[in-house]
Amino acid sequence: MTNKDVRTPASSQDESPVPGEPSTEAGKSVGWHKGYVEGSRPDLRVPVRQVHLTNGQSVSLYDTSGPYTDPLVGTDVRRGLPPLRENWIIARGDTAEYAGRPVRPEDDGIKHTAPRGGLRNLDAVFPGRPRQPRRGRDGEAVTQLAYARRGEVTPEMEYVAIRENVSPEVVREEIAAGRAVLPANVNHPEIEPMIIGKRFLVKVNANIGNSAVTSSIEEEVEKMTWATRWGADTVMDLSTGRNIHTTREWVLRNSPVPIGTVPLYQALEKVDGRAEELTWEIYKDTVIEQAEQGVDYMTVHAGVRLPYVPLTANRKTGIVSRGGSIMAAWCLAHHKESFLYENFEELCEILAAYDVTYSLGDGLRPGSIADANDEAQFAELRTLGELNRIARRFDVQTMIEGPGHVPMHKIKENIDLQQEICDEAPFYTLGPLTTDVAPAYDHITSGIGAAMIAWWGTAMLCYVTPKEHLGLPNRDDVKTGVITYKIAAHAADLAKGHPGAQEWDDALSDARFEFRWEDQFNLALDPDTARAFHDETLPAEPAKTAHFCSMCGPKFCSMKISQDIRREHGGSRGEIEEGMAQKSKEFAASGNRVYLPIAD
Amino acid sequence: MTNKDVRTPASSQDESPVPGEPSTEAGKSVGWHKGYVEGSRPDLRVPVRQVHLTNGQSVSLYDTSGPYTDPLVGTDVRRGLPPLRENWIIARGDTAEYAGRPVRPEDDGIKHTAPRGGLRNLDAVFPGRPRQPRRGRDGEAVTQLAYARRGEVTPEMEYVAIRENVSPEVVREEIAAGRAVLPANVNHPEIEPMIIGKRFLVKVNANIGNSAVTSSIEEEVEKMTWATRWGADTVMDLSTGRNIHTTREWVLRNSPVPIGTVPLYQALEKVDGRAEELTWEIYKDTVIEQAEQGVDYMTVHAGVRLPYVPLTANRKTGIVSRGGSIMAAWCLAHHKESFLYENFEELCEILAAYDVTYSLGDGLRPGSIADANDEAQFAELRTLGELNRIARRFDVQTMIEGPGHVPMHKIKENIDLQQEICDEAPFYTLGPLTTDVAPAYDHITSGIGAAMIAWWGTAMLCYVTPKEHLGLPNRDDVKTGVITYKIAAHAADLAKGHPGAQEWDDALSDARFEFRWEDQFNLALDPDTARAFHDETLPAEPAKTAHFCSMCGPKFCSMKISQDIRREHGGSRGEIEEGMAQKSKEFAASGNRVYLPIAD
Repeated sequence: MTNKDVRTPASSQDESPVPGEPSTEAGKSVGWHKGYVEGSRPDLRVPVRQVHLTNGQSVSLYDTSGPYTDPLVGTDVRRGLPPLRENWIIARGDTAEYAGRPVRPEDDGIKHTAPRGGLRNLDAVFPGRPRQPRRGRDGEAVTQLAYARRGEVTPEMEYVAIRENVSPEVVREEIAAGRAVLPANVNHPEIEPMIIGKRFLVKVNANIGNSAVTSSIEEEVEKMTWATRWGADTVMDLSTGRNIHTTREWVLRNSPVPIGTVPLYQALEKVDGRAEELTWEIYKDTVIEQAEQGVDYMTVHAGVRLPYVPLTANRKTGIVSRGGSIMAAWCLAHHKESFLYENFEELCEILAAYDVTYSLGDGLRPGSIADANDEAQFAELRTLGELNRIARRFDVQTMIEGPGHVPMHKIKENIDLQQEICDEAPFYTLGPLTTDVAPAYDHITSGIGAAMIAWWGTAMLCYVTPKEHLGLPNRDDVKTGVITYKIAAHAADLAKGHPGAQEWDDALSDARFEFRWEDQFNLALDPDTARAFHDETLPAEPAKTAHFCSMCGPKFCSMKISQDIRREHGGSRGEIEEGMAQKSKEFAASGNRVYLPIAD
Repeated sequence: MTNKDVRTPASSQDESPVPGEPSTEAGKSVGWHKGYVEGSRPDLRVPVRQVHLTNGQSVSLYDTSGPYTDPLVGTDVRRGLPPLRENWIIARGDTAEYAGRPVRPEDDGIKHTAPRGGLRNLDAVFPGRPRQPRRGRDGEAVTQLAYARRGEVTPEMEYVAIRENVSPEVVREEIAAGRAVLPANVNHPEIEPMIIGKRFLVKVNANIGNSAVTSSIEEEVEKMTWATRWGADTVMDLSTGRNIHTTREWVLRNSPVPIGTVPLYQALEKVDGRAEELTWEIYKDTVIEQAEQGVDYMTVHAGVRLPYVPLTANRKTGIVSRGGSIMAAWCLAHHKESFLYENFEELCEILAAYDVTYSLGDGLRPGSIADANDEAQFAELRTLGELNRIARRFDVQTMIEGPGHVPMHKIKENIDLQQEICDEAPFYTLGPLTTDVAPAYDHITSGIGAAMIAWWGTAMLCYVTPKEHLGLPNRDDVKTGVITYKIAAHAADLAKGHPGAQEWDDALSDARFEFRWEDQFNLALDPDTARAFHDETLPAEPAKTAHFCSMCGPKFCSMKISQDIRREHGGSRGEIEEGMAQKSKEFAASGNRVYLPIAD
C-alpha cells in the first residue's frame, strides 16, 4: 500500500493524540502518526496520516488537519500557522507588498459608536504575525490558472500531485483547462495546497460563521480546526454578525485549508442590512478587504439577474440563497440589472491580482423538491456559464455552485447541464437534499444526493449539518456534517474508481475479517465513535481481541464461522481454495448425482 | 390533499400524545390525531396519521404505529393486540384450528436442566389470549398469492389498496404476478396488512432480537413498538440467545406489523450451536413451531449450495451472512448438498399451509466493497431465481434478499439482475453499504445505497443501525436506523414518482416558506428532534412564530427576504407574478438597453 493514494480525516482522537512513535496499549502497537512525503525540494513536504496496524503493516491516508496534529510543530492560535507558501510566492517575483486598505471599525460592524482608536491596519487585528498585503504587480494575474496555461508547474501543483497520487503534469493540465481549481490567495501562505476537480478526490467544504444571534470569534476558530481535523478540505466563513473582519483574520491565520467567503454578507452589514443601499463601490471595497486578508475563494452571486427574478414568483419556496435573495431585492428595488453582473469584468481584475478563486453562486437554487430544476435555476446556470468564460479570459480560477433540494431522479441533469454549459468547470454542490420531510436529518437527506452527484462528477461537496433549516450548528453538528460528507465523498471516489481509493476499504475489511478490532477503529473515519460503540456492550479489554462482538455473539458470528471453515478445511486461504476446488471437481466428476446441477 | 397518499412514521412524540381532538398550545391548534379510512365493511378501517396544520388544513400520512397511538383502543402488552383479521381468516373457511406442536423447554434454549413443568402449550407462553394454531385444511395453500391468482380480492388486499391509494385490483394483480407480497400468517391476525412490491411505497424493515450476550424479552417487545412508532413497516426478530420462543410469542401478540425470522438461528440453538448437527427434521420442526406462532415471513438460506462454498475462498471477507455461514459449514462438514435446497418443496408445502412468505436469504452476499457482485453472490442469486419459481408452483409468496456491501457503481446491476432472474419478485436489500470505512456511521453508508437501489426498484429496505459491525443496537440506534431508512425510502418514492409522495414534501416546504414552525415540526419525520434542535438556540416561544431562525438570523433569512419581495412588489403570489412579468416585458420592450440580454 503506497502512502499517497488513500485519504481520511485528520485526527482520530478527541484528546490530542501523541503522534510520532505509535503508542503501546495493552501490549499491542496501536495508533497513528503524522508523516510527510517530500517533494522535489525540502520545503515541499506533504502531510499524511500514517495508521499503524497490529499486523505490522501501515496505511497512509490523506490528511487535512494541518500542523495541529504534528507535535514537532508548535502551534499557537495567537501567532498563527507557519507561512508555508511564503517563499514560493515571493520567489515567483510577480507580486509586491503594499500598504493595503485601512481597516475601519465598520469592517467589524461597529458604526453607531465613535471609532475606538480610529483606523487600524491588519497588525492591530491579528498582532501575532505582522504583515502587509500582497498583490500582483501592475494588476498582473498571479493565479495558478495563469501559470498553468503558461506551462508552469508551481510548487503548489507539485504538492497537490503528491497528495492525489498523480503526476504534476496532470494537475497542471486540469487547472489549465479550467477543469480544476487550486484555491490559494497570495495572502494566505499558511495553506497546505489542495485541488478541486473531477479527476481528483472529491472534496468537502464545511461552513462555519457566527450569526447575529449567537457565536463568538473563539468558537469559529475552534470550529475551523475541528472541521479540518475530521476531514474538511476547505472551510467557508459565513459570519454575518459583529466582528466579521476580526473573526475572518483569526480564522485565516490559523487555517491550513483554503477559506471561502460570501463578500455580499459583509457588504450588507456595512449598509445596516438594507439591501437597496448596497452599491458596487461598497461591494468592491469589501472584496478588496477580504482579498488582502487572504480569502481563497469567494461566492459571487452575479448570475442572479433582474429578468430572472419573476421566474421565482411561482415557486413553492421562492429564493432560498441568502446572497440570491439580497441581490433579487436590490434588483427589484432599483429596477436595475445586478451590479455584480454589470461589473463582473472589473471584479475579475481584482480577483486575478490576488489569486482569489470564483465560486459562482447559485442564488436561484431550488429550496424544495417542488422547485428543483426549474426555469429560474437553469436560466441562472446559463449565465454562470457565460461568466465562467469571462473569468477565464482574466485567468481567474472558477468553480460553479449547485443545488440545493433535488429529488434523486433529477440530480443527474444538474451535473450534466453544468458540465456542458460551464465548460467542465468544477461543480461545487450543496447536497442536494433528496427530500424535504426530515428536518434534523438533513445531513442524511443531502448525503444521499451528495454521494450520487459526486459520483457523476461534482468536484466538491458543501456539507449540510443536522441543524440545517433549524439553527446554527454546534461542534457536534459540525463533526456529524463533515463525517457524513466524507462518507459521501469517499463513496463517490470508489464509484469513480479513483486510483487507490479502495485500498482504504480493503485495509479496514481485512482488519474486520481478521478480528483486529484496534485496527478497525484506527482505520475508521471516526475512530472514537467506533471504539465507543463497541465498548458500550463489550467494554472489557479481552473483547478487543475476541473473534465476535455483541451484535451476534460468539455462536452466530459469520466471520468467525467463515474463518473456522477456512481453518478446518484448509488452513491458509490458498489451501482451502485448492481443497475446495478439488471437492468441487469431485462433485462434478460424480455426475452430480448427489448434488443438483449448479444454477440453471 | 387526500388522506391516503402520503406516509410518515407513526407517532410524533416521545411521550404518548393525546390524539383525538388536537390540543391547543400557545393559542394555536397543533398536533395530530389517529384517523381511520373505512373500506367496504365496518371492520376494515385503515389507520392514518392526521396532522393538523395551523393554517386550518390537514395532511394524512401513512401510519405504522398500530393501536398504540389510538387512545380509544386500550392496549396491554400482557393481553396482546386485538385480532383484527381473525374474522376475515375464519370467514374464508379454508383453515382449521388444531392442537399444535407442544412447546418444549428447548424451544427456549433450556436443555441442560430438567424440564420445568414439562411440555407446555402456547397458552402457557403467552397467557393473555388463549388460542390454538390454525392452518390450511388438508394442507391447502391459504396464501394471498393463491387467492390473488384465483381472482379473489381479500379484505387484506382492500386494506393495503386504501393504504397505498391504488385500486384493490392493482394490489391483486401485483400479488398474483409475484411482483408483490402481502405477508400475513393466518396465526398472526393482529397485523394491519401491508404490501411489499415495487409498484407500492418502499418499505422499511427493522431488526430486533436479543443475542447471547445481552438483551431481554421486555426490551425486544419495546424495541418492536418503538421501531413501528417511527415507521418500521415490518420487524425481524433475530433473537439467538435464551427465551427465543417466548420472546417471539410476546413480540407477535403485540405487533401490528408483519414479523420475520430466520428459523435457522433457533434450529442452531437446539443443537447447541454445532452447525454440523443440524438436520432437516430439526429445521422443519422449528419452522412449524414458528409458523404456528404466527411468523409472517422467514428468511431461508436455501441458495447456499455446496458447490458455491469454494467460490468464497478468495474473498476478502468470506461469508458474512450468519445463515449463509452456518449452511456453508454444514455442507462442508457433511460434504453434502444443503438440506434446505434438497427439501425445498416440502418446505413450500408447510409455508403454504400458514401463508408464511419466503424471504430467500442471500447467504453469500458480499461483506466488503472488494467482494461486491462476485461469482459467489451471483451464483446464489441464480439459484434463488430457481427457488422462486418452485415456491410459485406451491403458491407461496416470495421475496428475494439482496446485499450487502456494494460501491455505488455496482448497485444497479444487483437490482437489474435480481429482477430478471427472479421474475420481478420483490427485492429486499440490506443497504447496500457504499463504503467500508465508516463503522459507527453505517446507517449513513448504507442509507445512500438504500435510497439508490430503492429508486431502481427494491421493494423493501432492511435498516442498518449505527451499531452495525460493532454491537447490539439500543433504543436510540433503532430509532436512528429507522429514520435514516424512512428517508431513503421516501427519497425513492419521490424519485419513482409514487402518486402523492411529493405532497408531504410540499406541505412541509409550504410551512417552511410561511414560517409555520409548529407545522414544520409536526410534519417532520422526527418532530421531537426537529423541535429540540430549533429550541437549542432559539428556545423562546415567540421564536416559534419568528420569520427567521438562528441559522442566519433576521437580516439574512433568504425566505424572509423572498417574502418581503413578494409583499412589496405584489402582495399575493399571483399579483407579484403579474407585476414582475409586466416589468419583464417593459425591459424587453425598452430594447434591453439597461439590461443585458437574458442568458445567451
